[in-house]
Amino acid sequence: MFNNSEIFTPLGAGGKKYAVIVAGGAGLRMGTAMPKQFLPLRGKPVLWHSLNTFLEAWPGLEIILVLPQDHLHTGETIVSTTSNPARIRITVGGETRFHSVKNGLTLINEPSIVFVHDAVRCLITTNLIHRCYDAALEKGNAIPAIQPIDTLRIETPDGNRLLDRQLVRIIQTPQTFYSDLIKKAFDQPYDTSFTDEASVVEKLGIPIQLIEGEASNIKITRPLDILLAEKILEEREW
Amino acid sequence: MFNNSEIFTPLGAGGKKYAVIVAGGAGLRMGTAMPKQFLPLRGKPVLWHSLNTFLEAWPGLEIILVLPQDHLHTGETIVSTTSNPARIRITVGGETRFHSVKNGLTLINEPSIVFVHDAVRCLITTNLIHRCYDAALEKGNAIPAIQPIDTLRIETPDGNRLLDRQLVRIIQTPQTFYSDLIKKAFDQPYDTSFTDEASVVEKLGIPIQLIEGEASNIKITRPLDILLAEKILEEREW
Repeated sequence: MFNNSEIFTPLGAGGKKYAVIVAGGAGLRMGTAMPKQFLPLRGKPVLWHSLNTFLEAWPGLEIILVLPQDHLHTGETIVSTTSNPARIRITVGGETRFHSVKNGLTLINEPSIVFVHDAVRCLITTNLIHRCYDAALEKGNAIPAIQPIDTLRIETPDGNRLLDRQLVRIIQTPQTFYSDLIKKAFDQPYDTSFTDEASVVEKLGIPIQLIEGEASNIKITRPLDILLAEKILEEREW
Repeated sequence: MFNNSEIFTPLGAGGKKYAVIVAGGAGLRMGTAMPKQFLPLRGKPVLWHSLNTFLEAWPGLEIILVLPQDHLHTGETIVSTTSNPARIRITVGGETRFHSVKNGLTLINEPSIVFVHDAVRCLITTNLIHRCYDAALEKGNAIPAIQPIDTLRIETPDGNRLLDRQLVRIIQTPQTFYSDLIKKAFDQPYDTSFTDEASVVEKLGIPIQLIEGEASNIKITRPLDILLAEKILEEREW
């Protein structure tokens, strides 16, 4: 087990912040030609919403947007419509999520707090971003998570058994880390067990800190989710 | 470990079928005065949809509807609008889900296959009901379940760790059993670990059989779910 302070250089509260926003998926599950990060949500693309909320979080935050090669142009057009395109750099995604994030991280070369966020979690709030920041600043990492409401079972070598859902957490993004820590984690060779950034950092032997996420911080993966997202945005206006 | 055949009397394929439909919840999560099983969905209450799909599944199936004491009258009115009210009996729910199901089961006194279903899973299909029946007839029980799409973690005594989501199943209803088996299971004293009927049967030492559920077999728990349900029903009409 590493000691956190061996991995990262502590930062002050006014330190540099980067958001790596990953829009690399081909979105095959949607049954639409357009990858889901580009679908319209209340007149603006899903990706626009994610970018704008991060831009709003702090005036000094910079965004690294990771896009699929085939959709660079669409991404550039969306960036140009945000409140501050100058704070957004674009890079190209890799073969897997791991490779996409790794590409984005190469553009970060100063001690900072790094948020890694799914572009399709477009209902993210500045409140959750700020809470992730505070928690990561203190402990090195912060991962938002919520509790399941369904009964869960787990397959075992001889069948399956009830899983205590009180102990289970559904993981969200932005997964938030000291830059030294996440960059070191992504120097490790790729492993198929890496399903998110926390699993990569965990492989270093670092304890993962879970914080309370938001039920509305949904991932747009099915056509129905756009409808849900519209409804959630509508309710926020009240 | 019990042998299945010690517990239940094998039935032929044309045997008796009962559905215990549990509409016992107070529905506090909805933020509406009306419990969620009575909310309108395309002009008919949520409960009506669940009742009607079970009535459609087989002409001989009988329903035992478990209702909260305070809503007996509303339930009776809904029953009277279904395609076959004569096949629906009403009984009153208990303190917990366990007690409500136990009350319903006391009305079943012949060897049969018993479906226990959440009234708020109103998008249930006759296809899933038939698949549950076939699987339970063969192995004694059948529980529909789907795979999670999110990354999951589990709390451990010294923190938390990644959970292999390939092994996790999200449990749905109708949970389906031989009547002898489920009645014997519900003779056990109540335990707070009973979160569903499968967990009660599992306590007897019986292996639980999971079968493929349906992603659209959602539970109406939040106001947004009604909207989702409307959209799913709309798409089914195409």
